[in-house]
Amino acid sequence: MSTKLLALSLSLCFLLFSSCFALREQSQQNECQLERLDALEPDNRIESEGGLIETWNPNNRQFRCAGVALSRATLQRNALRRPYYSNAPQEIYIQQGNGYFGMVFPGCPETFEEPQQSEQGEGRRYRDSHQKVNRFREGDIIAVPTGIVFWMYNDQDTPVIAISLTDTGSSNNQLDQMPRRFYLAGNQEQEFLRYQHQQGGKEEQDNDGNNIFSGFKRDFLEDALNVNRHIVDRLQGRNEDEEKGAIVKVKGGLSIITPPERQARHPRGSRQEEDEDEDEKEERQPSHHKSRRGEDEDDKEKRHSQKGESRRHGDNGLEETVCTAKLRLNIGSSSSPDIYNPQAGRIKTVTSLDLPVLRWLKLSAEHGSLRKNAMFVPHYNLNANSVLYALKGRARLQVVNCNGNTVFDGELEAGRALTVPQNYAVAAKSLSDRFTYVAFKTNDRAGIAKLAGTTSAINALPLDVVAATFNLQRNEARQLKSNNPFKFLVPPRESEKRASA
Amino acid sequence: MSTKLLALSLSLCFLLFSSCFALREQSQQNECQLERLDALEPDNRIESEGGLIETWNPNNRQFRCAGVALSRATLQRNALRRPYYSNAPQEIYIQQGNGYFGMVFPGCPETFEEPQQSEQGEGRRYRDSHQKVNRFREGDIIAVPTGIVFWMYNDQDTPVIAISLTDTGSSNNQLDQMPRRFYLAGNQEQEFLRYQHQQGGKEEQDNDGNNIFSGFKRDFLEDALNVNRHIVDRLQGRNEDEEKGAIVKVKGGLSIITPPERQARHPRGSRQEEDEDEDEKEERQPSHHKSRRGEDEDDKEKRHSQKGESRRHGDNGLEETVCTAKLRLNIGSSSSPDIYNPQAGRIKTVTSLDLPVLRWLKLSAEHGSLRKNAMFVPHYNLNANSVLYALKGRARLQVVNCNGNTVFDGELEAGRALTVPQNYAVAAKSLSDRFTYVAFKTNDRAGIAKLAGTTSAINALPLDVVAATFNLQRNEARQLKSNNPFKFLVPPRESEKRASA
Amino acid sequence: MSTKLLALSLSLCFLLFSSCFALREQSQQNECQLERLDALEPDNRIESEGGLIETWNPNNRQFRCAGVALSRATLQRNALRRPYYSNAPQEIYIQQGNGYFGMVFPGCPETFEEPQQSEQGEGRRYRDSHQKVNRFREGDIIAVPTGIVFWMYNDQDTPVIAISLTDTGSSNNQLDQMPRRFYLAGNQEQEFLRYQHQQGGKEEQDNDGNNIFSGFKRDFLEDALNVNRHIVDRLQGRNEDEEKGAIVKVKGGLSIITPPERQARHPRGSRQEEDEDEDEKEERQPSHHKSRRGEDEDDKEKRHSQKGESRRHGDNGLEETVCTAKLRLNIGSSSSPDIYNPQAGRIKTVTSLDLPVLRWLKLSAEHGSLRKNAMFVPHYNLNANSVLYALKGRARLQVVNCNGNTVFDGELEAGRALTVPQNYAVAAKSLSDRFTYVAFKTNDRAGIAKLAGTTSAINALPLDVVAATFNLQRNEARQLKSNNPFKFLVPPRESEKRASA
Repeated sequence: MSTKLLALSLSLCFLLFSSCFALREQSQQNECQLERLDALEPDNRIESEGGLIETWNPNNRQFRCAGVALSRATLQRNALRRPYYSNAPQEIYIQQGNGYFGMVFPGCPETFEEPQQSEQGEGRRYRDSHQKVNRFREGDIIAVPTGIVFWMYNDQDTPVIAISLTDTGSSNNQLDQMPRRFYLAGNQEQEFLRYQHQQGGKEEQDNDGNNIFSGFKRDFLEDALNVNRHIVDRLQGRNEDEEKGAIVKVKGGLSIITPPERQARHPRGSRQEEDEDEDEKEERQPSHHKSRRGEDEDDKEKRHSQKGESRRHGDNGLEETVCTAKLRLNIGSSSSPDIYNPQAGRIKTVTSLDLPVLRWLKLSAEHGSLRKNAMFVPHYNLNANSVLYALKGRARLQVVNCNGNTVFDGELEAGRALTVPQNYAVAAKSLSDRFTYVAFKTNDRAGIAKLAGTTSAINALPLDVVAATFNLQRNEARQLKSNNPFKFLVPPRESEKRASA
Repeated sequence: MSTKLLALSLSLCFLLFSSCFALREQSQQNECQLERLDALEPDNRIESEGGLIETWNPNNRQFRCAGVALSRATLQRNALRRPYYSNAPQEIYIQQGNGYFGMVFPGCPETFEEPQQSEQGEGRRYRDSHQKVNRFREGDIIAVPTGIVFWMYNDQDTPVIAISLTDTGSSNNQLDQMPRRFYLAGNQEQEFLRYQHQQGGKEEQDNDGNNIFSGFKRDFLEDALNVNRHIVDRLQGRNEDEEKGAIVKVKGGLSIITPPERQARHPRGSRQEEDEDEDEKEERQPSHHKSRRGEDEDDKEKRHSQKGESRRHGDNGLEETVCTAKLRLNIGSSSSPDIYNPQAGRIKTVTSLDLPVLRWLKLSAEHGSLRKNAMFVPHYNLNANSVLYALKGRARLQVVNCNGNTVFDGELEAGRALTVPQNYAVAAKSLSDRFTYVAFKTNDRAGIAKLAGTTSAINALPLDVVAATFNLQRNEARQLKSNNPFKFLVPPRESEKRASA
Repeated sequence: MSTKLLALSLSLCFLLFSSCFALREQSQQNECQLERLDALEPDNRIESEGGLIETWNPNNRQFRCAGVALSRATLQRNALRRPYYSNAPQEIYIQQGNGYFGMVFPGCPETFEEPQQSEQGEGRRYRDSHQKVNRFREGDIIAVPTGIVFWMYNDQDTPVIAISLTDTGSSNNQLDQMPRRFYLAGNQEQEFLRYQHQQGGKEEQDNDGNNIFSGFKRDFLEDALNVNRHIVDRLQGRNEDEEKGAIVKVKGGLSIITPPERQARHPRGSRQEEDEDEDEKEERQPSHHKSRRGEDEDDKEKRHSQKGESRRHGDNGLEETVCTAKLRLNIGSSSSPDIYNPQAGRIKTVTSLDLPVLRWLKLSAEHGSLRKNAMFVPHYNLNANSVLYALKGRARLQVVNCNGNTVFDGELEAGRALTVPQNYAVAAKSLSDRFTYVAFKTNDRAGIAKLAGTTSAINALPLDVVAATFNLQRNEARQLKSNNPFKFLVPPRESEKRASA
């Protein structure tokens, strides 16, 4: 039975997406002959009514080499990032905050339905229905496929900060390398447009809106949507202040059909549950936002009647279909780490083995946290470019290219991003009590090869090869193979521990 | 058993073709920063003895962005398009006419065999055999893989018109983006060569032929083929008039080993059969051309003895092998549509789910027919570039880019082609009683996302998100989500219907 | 059970490698509009202490079109090619010699272990262990995946000559087209660096080493490796003579843990064994090098206790896992050919069907040997670029492009390489008693289409199509289809045989 469902899901995956084995484009000629990398801050800032979008220049050579674009969105309370889609897959890391997001999968049913109202006096009222809405929380990775409409909303007091990597080098992108946002609404310039103009000659056009509807003539939209001119004007962003922007303030907050938040009612079983289903934790968190309709219903009943609900109680196979595919996974500091040493730090990765949708996006990510003076050992990415974004604290990083040159030796501090191209060696040492970072990688099964530690390339070589290779005595080669008892994270030396204590 | 055959076919697919998951190249830098699209006519015309090849300039920016080349061949009665192969996969749509085509799959057996002759007096005569020959008819899509030799022949009075899209952006093409035709015979210039010269400097060489044999020295060919100099000269196209060209006239018509055309003998069962096997219909059409040898044989007996014949009676699994893979499917107006509204029109698509060979080519197609004043709603291609070619009538089209700019607002009339890049929004309204078009798409599972109608992105959003996004009252948002009861094709308004009646 | 193991191996393949369906990049714009090809010799030569590396300029247009880089390494007796990795997959052909090679697969266990020493007086001594070491011999193809550390060693008197093709156009390479070697040790310039400088401006940096460790600061390495400054200096190649180079001399020879060489003890069964497992033959060859520890052990016992050993006795499924994947196959003159005609010659190919690891690399190869005046018929590569490297003797080759122009008509002599782009037609005639070559192909299932012989494209066409296409009488077309009774290799004519006898 589960085989059948898997087969179904695979065929659906082929149905909806161009390819389940999407690959990446190579960098343009000479783009990767980088003699120097920089830890970059965003260089542009676009204010919106409800928040802020900051972008890094995608024409910067280190981003062109990696074939990616980076941006950061900040959403204030009750702010909605209006729906948009991109010409390339996106991986979004939630640096801070909680909220809701939704995506539109063409052809999928609207599975969230407004319940029947009890007041039947006024006859059959309009009952809303829409595709699934998801909750996100700090530390989540959200995967947004190419061309899929995405929106997000902050229903909390804490501003939401979301870092987004757009993989323009993906073969899912059949246009050129420029990242593009297609907005469904508003009158704001798409955030990467200014970089496009830097390259070609700008031909400023006289238009009354910058969204995907604004380019159609009114009569076309009136016919296609069967609505009046007033609504069409709103769709086209006419008469709208450009300053409103891509992130709008929702007065009184948004009312969405969502299941009620579960309370942590059963503390006995909670620990176990957490291990099994750690990324559902947020649904047990206290929340300021309540869906109005959901409250009316009995919690238990909903579990059985609502499809979106059923996912909580173990995988049933159907969750593998595209329409209900899991789109987020928590890799933040509160999730259970993959690599852990209390004195050194913790690492958690998400690949397509953890979050299958990443197989279509060909992206993965890693979240790391290093204690003061702890290191991650020199290593390189086997099959991916990597963009390291510092979330908290600062660390000293070194990156080396194929000529043995140091292309980066400096500090990476919170809010800055550093590209580590494929096969370039990199090592880091934390300068803060907690240096945390997220690394976006351009391969859904990104792998690394270590150059130090018990599982390093040196340790896999025969002793005599090590001795001959490095021009060492055999006993020195033995030291090289055995002195470091750690694998990836190296805790600070005793002297450093005392100094920092 | 069928599992075994499928396994066999899959391994064969790997055997013969580079990859069953061929992907596409990205466009070169900035190629897709298009501020204006054009509905283009062919800009070059090469007359041949038996017909005509027209080409669109593949260096035109909108084709370079889409990574495709377009051409149109016209074959008069008894005209043979001489065998050639290309460095990229081709999708051919038969706009008009009927005829035969063949492809050569290296390593596959010659399954069409000439029968034993009854006159045994002269001993064992030469009996010809060759690979399968297929019949095509108006409305067919023919899939031609990279490097596969292809020929076609018109045995009817009506000229054959064939539109061909060559996907030079396919990763099956390991050369550069320039489309190339490698002719097996003749002395004509390959049709895309002139565009190549526009780019590099032309170094005119002194050669006596332009086909793949003409570049070899005579002694090489004499040795390799073991034939006399006269035949080698013919192979090399020497002494041949360049005007003869790629399409030659066959005096007296071509005699090919093919099964006899089936007559519509059983009108009772015909309707049902049509539904099951609609694209075999043409074999029941009256035909001027008869294979000479086929007539001698009993129809019934052949069904069991000939391999090509057995395919008509349900799939037997073996038809999945590469050697006998289905290479054509009818999507024309006479085929059963996928989307249908008698007042609005009809749409039929072919993807790799309908025609498995398209999985190797990474191409699909759509045939549409719109009644006067009917629309297809604003939508975008999720994962493909699209080239729209108008077959009949004319329509008003609008295309919008990521900046909300109208990159096309004009008429597309029969014989012109318009590129719609990935994710660009497009809508159309027919200006003729019947506007018909074919759209070639650069993905074997091309998907669209609608921006209006009951299955649109707007309808998949929560009501409050729609209201907040478009700055609408909730009741206006309700109108936007529910006023248009149609999905993809919108019939003309009542007023327009009356006007056009 | 074997299904389970296969499933395991497949998931491992996904685990470790970016993609099991890696594809190739297209050539940059106009790179393949080649009017002339050349049979090229290496144009640069870097001497090392223990040998020599020669390179072809990868910026040469015919290599840029094919997206590959070529180099040739010569290792003297007791020479070690120091460990390095590349940004693209490599296919290495052993033109001459025997020796050992190793690769490091990150995450795989160290399965070759030093046995317990009998002298237990001094307590538990350091026991070395490392990943598998393989033996290679003349005629082997070795497949080196992207980013995987590789080393090789010559333990014989005959110098080892290894031709390496690096497929920079592979989509496994996410950097630009420039081939890169990342050395783990030494102070020599990586061999393709000089070509990089030709393109960009060289910014000579002041560095004391050119390996992947030399760019890290000393304190970083001391912390990461927990070794003293002296060892770090050696790692970084400081104080090392640059002339030592990438290939070093090992004084007294290398001692590696390897199974003892099998002797040809059972001549009765040997013939059969050879057929089944031909490429293990070298292990029965007499060898100058003996692993010191291996000799102590009983041969029979080892077969059961050592994992590396077990592979010899039939496939057990586990050999399919990445960690123990077969990485070499012999296609040399001593292996059993795929195409054979005693008067014409022999051809052997290796594809991903023979050596599954090639499926990740998307490369294959062909070894051919032609007798004097024998030909291989005009043919083209369906789905691959090909680089022909002459091993012995010389031949006349002709290559024809899509315009019918001769882009090459000349001799290819031992030591020179000629690129044959996808779909270009090529034919050859041997001018030596034995012309042998190896062809590297940029597709793991490279296929060819013949233009002459009984399985050619001409033979697959209907007789009347041949006649009409080539403007021939029907009896001439019959000659063309039937006169050459050979398939791929054509023996010399009788007259030539006598002449050369």
